[in-house]
Amino acid sequence: MKRIVNFSAGPATLPFEVLQQVQAELLDWNGSGMSVMEMSHRDKEFMSIAQAAEQDLREVMGIPANYKVLFMQGGATAQFSFVPMNLLRGKAGADYIVTGDWGKKAAKIGGQLCKVNVAASAEADKFTHIPERGSWNLDPDAAYVHITPNETIHGVEFHAEPDTAGVPLVADMSSNILSRPIDVSKYGLIYAGAQKNIGPSGVTIVVVREDLLGETLPKTPAIFDYKQVADNESMLNTPPCFAWYVAGLVFKWMKQQGGMTAIGERNAAKAALLYDYIDSEPFYTNPVRKADRSRMNVPFTLANPERDADFLKGAKAVGLSGLKGHRSVGGMRASIYNAMTIDGVQALVDYMKEFVRTQS
Amino acid sequence: MKRIVNFSAGPATLPFEVLQQVQAELLDWNGSGMSVMEMSHRDKEFMSIAQAAEQDLREVMGIPANYKVLFMQGGATAQFSFVPMNLLRGKAGADYIVTGDWGKKAAKIGGQLCKVNVAASAEADKFTHIPERGSWNLDPDAAYVHITPNETIHGVEFHAEPDTAGVPLVADMSSNILSRPIDVSKYGLIYAGAQKNIGPSGVTIVVVREDLLGETLPKTPAIFDYKQVADNESMLNTPPCFAWYVAGLVFKWMKQQGGMTAIGERNAAKAALLYDYIDSEPFYTNPVRKADRSRMNVPFTLANPERDADFLKGAKAVGLSGLKGHRSVGGMRASIYNAMTIDGVQALVDYMKEFVRTQS
Repeated sequence: MKRIVNFSAGPATLPFEVLQQVQAELLDWNGSGMSVMEMSHRDKEFMSIAQAAEQDLREVMGIPANYKVLFMQGGATAQFSFVPMNLLRGKAGADYIVTGDWGKKAAKIGGQLCKVNVAASAEADKFTHIPERGSWNLDPDAAYVHITPNETIHGVEFHAEPDTAGVPLVADMSSNILSRPIDVSKYGLIYAGAQKNIGPSGVTIVVVREDLLGETLPKTPAIFDYKQVADNESMLNTPPCFAWYVAGLVFKWMKQQGGMTAIGERNAAKAALLYDYIDSEPFYTNPVRKADRSRMNVPFTLANPERDADFLKGAKAVGLSGLKGHRSVGGMRASIYNAMTIDGVQALVDYMKEFVRTQS
Repeated sequence: MKRIVNFSAGPATLPFEVLQQVQAELLDWNGSGMSVMEMSHRDKEFMSIAQAAEQDLREVMGIPANYKVLFMQGGATAQFSFVPMNLLRGKAGADYIVTGDWGKKAAKIGGQLCKVNVAASAEADKFTHIPERGSWNLDPDAAYVHITPNETIHGVEFHAEPDTAGVPLVADMSSNILSRPIDVSKYGLIYAGAQKNIGPSGVTIVVVREDLLGETLPKTPAIFDYKQVADNESMLNTPPCFAWYVAGLVFKWMKQQGGMTAIGERNAAKAALLYDYIDSEPFYTNPVRKADRSRMNVPFTLANPERDADFLKGAKAVGLSGLKGHRSVGGMRASIYNAMTIDGVQALVDYMKEFVRTQS
């Protein structure tokens, strides 16, 4: 068996120790005589898995007791609709800060259900920075302010929570959840598809302050209603059990790694290794303002874009995979989520150096 | 490693050969150097898995070319809303045939979005039979007629498609999809959560006649719009990749088993073995009219309900699990989906005989 170094933007590399555990217990979980895939979600075996996952997530992320944790389906894209369905609470509209394609999609889909005010956008600058907080045109009567703390495609990231003057802050944290310590109490709602830092695609984590719940739009189906999902411990219908289980193993792995402080430090070191090299070598360029650079997704271009295909081919040949940039920005992108090791990033930097050397 | 005989109603037992394959390739799928959980859904590796799964499903189920096959999220419960969102096509309402708790839920949730006409219900008879076709009060102007071909809780099953006089027939086939040969062309729409006959929970199969698509209700989010999902090959956002992959392995297993004809015969034999014994032994009772009995879910009661706990405890001791009946009907329930072997059913019958013997 060989394993590649996987820089895919998501689904993405998972901790090897977690995959080994999944493999070891695939036919018989913990002496139960069945796979997790075969367990009734109402059985005590799966209930113990589900509850431990929530408990470990609460612990590793520091989630206060007045927040509900939900395990849902549909990815962040479904949440783009669920957020206004649940959080308008009688108000007409919401503010959206657009810092990349995902924020733009969130605003567009949210706009099907409410009046969306794009309070700030960096689109005119090709999403290469976070708009200064002072330039935001917030509506004091907005139901919430929606941000995308990390934009997977453009590689821009909020490094602190913006002040929203008491209006609930809603964050699509799909691509940087659990990558460093955050203060959950600064958010009204956090949601994240699992397939970057959490586990396999198919489960979506929602962390929501409970006082925001209970006023959904009329005709909202129960399984899209956060309050009803919370009241039924995310089992209003059969949940995505296996993905939930793998996510739980990843949360345990995070604790073993030293929790958010240690993981955040490692992520900062990985990002610095790669950005420092890019900034030192004129052949590579990252277009994002330094203060707003993502520690999760590092897009970069080659001085000669005609060499893109060769770069990717050579990378593949040495076991470095998933580096092609998103079609909307071109070039390359290295996604270096929690499960990417520093050795993996070093291997990429070594290859980038070697690629430059063979150009001259 | 011991394996139990798992009669759970869902998530449910899976073919052991499939689980072994999942285990074998968990760290490195087909020499790709990564787990299926780690693959970008846009990569050629996952695309090949996804397309093979659809192709095998089309083949084993005999799906005509003018039907779309979708791999969605949210389970049958989400479909209860998606069906009216997508299939009303300008009409005011739809007919629902209520043959158990699941059909009742489908009608209730559908009723949030359209005028629901319950054209027939067996609730007054505690869902112990399918209402005679002649008694149905169908609306000729209904957008569709919704049935639940197999009711998991009550153990009643349609053994032929009802005539709906040209109105599209919509079926929640969650608990009997792929259990015997059917003529897909008799249906406008078939949907099924995966966690009984298909694979792990978290993926939902939709098979829909393409001429019914394209007229969704206003404000329907794109990822709930069958046409947009179809146009994007179920990848409008990140799909539940791992569940899709396991489902694909189950479809291949079905082909290796001889397809629907062989599987249908085996399911009939398994059901006959259990019902024949129940009917022969006064200590056990199944309340369902013989012609309408489910070949997937066999509820039964003991002559002395005070012995229920002992029955379950003794069953567990000999490795027979998941037999507790749904709380709404009580007693026992043996779910005997495709992956349940005839030896498993024989072991249950043997235990039931022994339990009776030790009563006297």
